[in-house]
Amino acid sequence: MASIFTKIIRGDIPCYKIAENEYCFSFLDINPLQKGHVLVVSKTEADQLFDLDDKAYSELLAYTKIISIAIKKAFPCNRIGMSVIGLEVPHAHIHLIPINLEKDMNFAQTKKSFSIVEFESIVAQIKAYL
Amino acid sequence: MASIFTKIIRGDIPCYKIAENEYCFSFLDINPLQKGHVLVVSKTEADQLFDLDDKAYSELLAYTKIISIAIKKAFPCNRIGMSVIGLEVPHAHIHLIPINLEKDMNFAQTKKSFSIVEFESIVAQIKAYL
Repeated sequence: MASIFTKIIRGDIPCYKIAENEYCFSFLDINPLQKGHVLVVSKTEADQLFDLDDKAYSELLAYTKIISIAIKKAFPCNRIGMSVIGLEVPHAHIHLIPINLEKDMNFAQTKKSFSIVEFESIVAQIKAYL
Repeated sequence: MASIFTKIIRGDIPCYKIAENEYCFSFLDINPLQKGHVLVVSKTEADQLFDLDDKAYSELLAYTKIISIAIKKAFPCNRIGMSVIGLEVPHAHIHLIPINLEKDMNFAQTKKSFSIVEFESIVAQIKAYL
């Protein structure tokens, strides 16, 4: 069965899409740790990041760099934290999170909540730098 | 001034070294979240991961995949979590951490403590799979 992320990539489940290319897809985390929290996924469905073949893996990481630079321009911060955990969805995904302090990346913290209009504004702000 | 990681790479500061290649260097985190917690760094000194040029960046991520696979063989776990935070040392570094639960990657948790003999054993176990 297709993963939830594959369904998002296909358009079967809606998302706040940032961008895509031949190999990768990026969209907002709807339970964000910070404003500008983005998920980057490979269009190749693999449970774990290091299960991806070298081509899919290198394309995903190259794409991650491009998206990170845009997020940082849209939401100035000390840096963009990157995290791969992946215990909840068996489809490798990379979290990109604008951070100023280590605790900004703590996944145990209460998630932020935004309205549809706010999510759409975040997408527009990031896309403006792509 | 050279970063603490550059001093480690040069051998000016001791570490529990795993391996190195032309572009990258890996060693145990001495304040590990879990047994088998490794740091992978580029020999190119850049504050932030996404500051690295495309060559140094892609070499670092390719190397990270190789090291991760070895860690997972040495310390069986659900998966190897990856995290880039980097607020403490201005030299881009990637944390690789064997995890079974999301909280295993929580940087706010108490760090694990090992003896020199234990650290050396961890190194040997990972190197056996490289």
